[in-house]
Amino acid sequence: MRKKKHPKESFTTKAEVVFPNDTNPLNHLMGGKMLHWMDIVAGITAIKHSNSIVTTVSVDSVSFAHPIKLGSIVTLEAQITRTYYSSMEVRIEVWAEDFLKGEKIKSNEAYYTFVAINKSGKTIEVPEIIPETEKETELYNDALRRRQLRLVLAGRMKPSEAKEVRSLFEL
Amino acid sequence: MRKKKHPKESFTTKAEVVFPNDTNPLNHLMGGKMLHWMDIVAGITAIKHSNSIVTTVSVDSVSFAHPIKLGSIVTLEAQITRTYYSSMEVRIEVWAEDFLKGEKIKSNEAYYTFVAINKSGKTIEVPEIIPETEKETELYNDALRRRQLRLVLAGRMKPSEAKEVRSLFEL
Amino acid sequence: MRKKKHPKESFTTKAEVVFPNDTNPLNHLMGGKMLHWMDIVAGITAIKHSNSIVTTVSVDSVSFAHPIKLGSIVTLEAQITRTYYSSMEVRIEVWAEDFLKGEKIKSNEAYYTFVAINKSGKTIEVPEIIPETEKETELYNDALRRRQLRLVLAGRMKPSEAKEVRSLFEL
Amino acid sequence: MRKKKHPKESFTTKAEVVFPNDTNPLNHLMGGKMLHWMDIVAGITAIKHSNSIVTTVSVDSVSFAHPIKLGSIVTLEAQITRTYYSSMEVRIEVWAEDFLKGEKIKSNEAYYTFVAINKSGKTIEVPEIIPETEKETELYNDALRRRQLRLVLAGRMKPSEAKEVRSLFEL
Amino acid sequence: MRKKKHPKESFTTKAEVVFPNDTNPLNHLMGGKMLHWMDIVAGITAIKHSNSIVTTVSVDSVSFAHPIKLGSIVTLEAQITRTYYSSMEVRIEVWAEDFLKGEKIKSNEAYYTFVAINKSGKTIEVPEIIPETEKETELYNDALRRRQLRLVLAGRMKPSEAKEVRSLFEL
Amino acid sequence: MRKKKHPKESFTTKAEVVFPNDTNPLNHLMGGKMLHWMDIVAGITAIKHSNSIVTTVSVDSVSFAHPIKLGSIVTLEAQITRTYYSSMEVRIEVWAEDFLKGEKIKSNEAYYTFVAINKSGKTIEVPEIIPETEKETELYNDALRRRQLRLVLAGRMKPSEAKEVRSLFEL
Repeated sequence: MRKKKHPKESFTTKAEVVFPNDTNPLNHLMGGKMLHWMDIVAGITAIKHSNSIVTTVSVDSVSFAHPIKLGSIVTLEAQITRTYYSSMEVRIEVWAEDFLKGEKIKSNEAYYTFVAINKSGKTIEVPEIIPETEKETELYNDALRRRQLRLVLAGRMKPSEAKEVRSLFEL
Repeated sequence: MRKKKHPKESFTTKAEVVFPNDTNPLNHLMGGKMLHWMDIVAGITAIKHSNSIVTTVSVDSVSFAHPIKLGSIVTLEAQITRTYYSSMEVRIEVWAEDFLKGEKIKSNEAYYTFVAINKSGKTIEVPEIIPETEKETELYNDALRRRQLRLVLAGRMKPSEAKEVRSLFEL
Repeated sequence: MRKKKHPKESFTTKAEVVFPNDTNPLNHLMGGKMLHWMDIVAGITAIKHSNSIVTTVSVDSVSFAHPIKLGSIVTLEAQITRTYYSSMEVRIEVWAEDFLKGEKIKSNEAYYTFVAINKSGKTIEVPEIIPETEKETELYNDALRRRQLRLVLAGRMKPSEAKEVRSLFEL
Repeated sequence: MRKKKHPKESFTTKAEVVFPNDTNPLNHLMGGKMLHWMDIVAGITAIKHSNSIVTTVSVDSVSFAHPIKLGSIVTLEAQITRTYYSSMEVRIEVWAEDFLKGEKIKSNEAYYTFVAINKSGKTIEVPEIIPETEKETELYNDALRRRQLRLVLAGRMKPSEAKEVRSLFEL
Repeated sequence: MRKKKHPKESFTTKAEVVFPNDTNPLNHLMGGKMLHWMDIVAGITAIKHSNSIVTTVSVDSVSFAHPIKLGSIVTLEAQITRTYYSSMEVRIEVWAEDFLKGEKIKSNEAYYTFVAINKSGKTIEVPEIIPETEKETELYNDALRRRQLRLVLAGRMKPSEAKEVRSLFEL
Repeated sequence: MRKKKHPKESFTTKAEVVFPNDTNPLNHLMGGKMLHWMDIVAGITAIKHSNSIVTTVSVDSVSFAHPIKLGSIVTLEAQITRTYYSSMEVRIEVWAEDFLKGEKIKSNEAYYTFVAINKSGKTIEVPEIIPETEKETELYNDALRRRQLRLVLAGRMKPSEAKEVRSLFEL
């Protein structure tokens, strides 16, 4: 029978400091560096959940609303939201902290999808995720709509078949 | 009067080699590294177009369909597709080449959005992009739909008002 | 009156993956890289506690008992154990995980000391740490002995005056 | 029969941004970093031409006439100028751009030589280069003199036998 | 018969420049970077002495007394002080130089211990070190006390049995 | 009166280990990485001699005769050979060591030229070098020919005026 796991079992936190080489000429963290950190923390989460090698298959759209200054502390938190046969959706929340002011703001939120693979590069089954908290259940339920949108945007599902997404636009 | 520029004036190419530290345990390029490279090449394009400092405001969803092996040559090409007052949409195409086989495949395609800013961090006007070729005009026209989708996904536009996106799903 | 804080307010976690450049020819994580990671996570903890710039003043002796393999997930956890006027002792625990086997072992434990400084490089007062749990209280109490040992080893206290350390050896 | 290729088939462009760690205390790009970038872009060109692994065998003298500032955009362009049995001479042109001023100047020009090797490290035959444009033909013809100079400087040809070089000095 | 070697045969020097990414917000070299450099130079020394792969087993406590500024030249010198069956104690001295003032100060002193291992990861015998100078002999003799302290601190020797250390505290 | 210094006062040694990211697909050190290391060690030498900021102005041709394997120890030694008003020629010798075999071979030899500059980027006078040993005197004398060749190759001296170089070819 398929193994089951809870989101908290693979929940991962990663603290980073914004170093000079991570910044643009205004001394703000570059978006690409943030996307790279997100991929690493989300990948670790997917590895812990699946106990296997994983590979990134997609990233949902990400906005960068707040500039993050050189020397800031950035905290990334990642958790599994939903699993399919071999793929896992991971949600990443990012917090930025200006330590002199002691202010901490939510900087970003993103969804990465990974598949588990064996050493020959074949996809393999992952444990089923069982949401526990109300928030985890909400993220689990909304995952279907994000998945359809991903498939439509990648040209692998017809917009007319994306019921979950259509319902969003037909409110 | 507002300055005008053609896409070819800021078109940028960046060749990279996949080094060991860029790969996962299967010796495939990690998605996060690719997203970082895309941000740099797209940022250079936006800098060339605007002659100013720029900052990434969003990345559209990206899929990673083909694993890229250690030692491969990766070529990233970036061009401005559409400009607004201070923001610029940049399209990145990525090609991966297995040099022993001489095979080159299209690996990814992505859209990053940047805003131009001055030294005080205020947004400033950018030159208007004037598409020339048929392909550039198509990318220019489709940009509106991508922009509405971005605004809806970031919660800054009501789905009911996203006419361009709605038309996609109501075919 | 001096500000007070609990250890949990600055507790910090940092997940890392062992990349090829972090390893020796046997594909094991190098000790120096581990010491560097420890310094960063401990420094973030000290920054969060003091809301100021910090600088490392000492590292206690560290042993590396278990080789950590390429591709392993390393989790570093850091917390303040005791504060003095401007200095803070930080304890770091390191866990290494072989994801294929799902085995997680405690790899290292270390103590780093930082001082808080202002922009002119002068030392400044830090909030007083108030231990809450039994474990935190034990770490708080034992900190005095570690401090004396540090001062003796740095040649800044006579062995004959190091009462806490002497008691250890005179059991 | 030996394969033939044109310079444009392996022509390679690489855009870079000058980051803080690439600079000296005056915030100018260090020469050694530039030489490293040149080696990578020239190596990619040689790999594309030969469809094989390559290794750098020599670099001709390079001058650094213009300081390049932190944050500048550096564009490196590389092309094959001449091939021998297993070796390829690659010419690199470097352009530096101060984006705020929109000024682009030619910064450097260099010649690197590579040999193609198989997986056992043995040198192998490369396709013959066929110059097409007038400029390519000039670079092809001048390559002999550069090669003799290289051999003389490496102590592998007697100055008295270096006819092409001698003619330069006996004008 | 066991091979013998003198400290000078594996003595190693490593010059470094403090780059922006190595510094904290006050532009001072971070302690963790220094510990990483020390591990590399000491590891090279141990490799030269043993002609084998080595792995770090411990680091003695290190103090950071003097801030080292961005752009400083750091010189690390490492030498074997004492060998046991398969382990080697290495002493590292660090000098920091403010080149504008021409001032060079001793910044740090540290002891790292390594073991020699073969390709299967088994410990192997290393050549015996034979001190030559008075200083080398002193370092050789004092090594026993440092070793006992290390074993006590790692919980692998009872304080009551650490005669060399006890004598230090019972003056 | 102009300050005088001996080569040994700024002689610099730098030990490096070849890490995975420094190598090509055959696990041999890349030429560009070696050129980067050479620039750093030679730059440190020039900084020590001049007690000022320096910038690389040229590199003479360099050959890479021997592949250096992953994990090798590379030792770079740099010394001033000759000074002019504000420029310094630095000679770098590189040794590569296969530690398992205990074999050490001379890998490369190169000449870099630097100028000393003040904080405004103006060139400034450097101490005069006074060679002491026979070898230093030979390097000092031969420096003139290398300098003329550099000027001819950079198009800043007519070949007909390069007496020192001409004599080499007219033996």
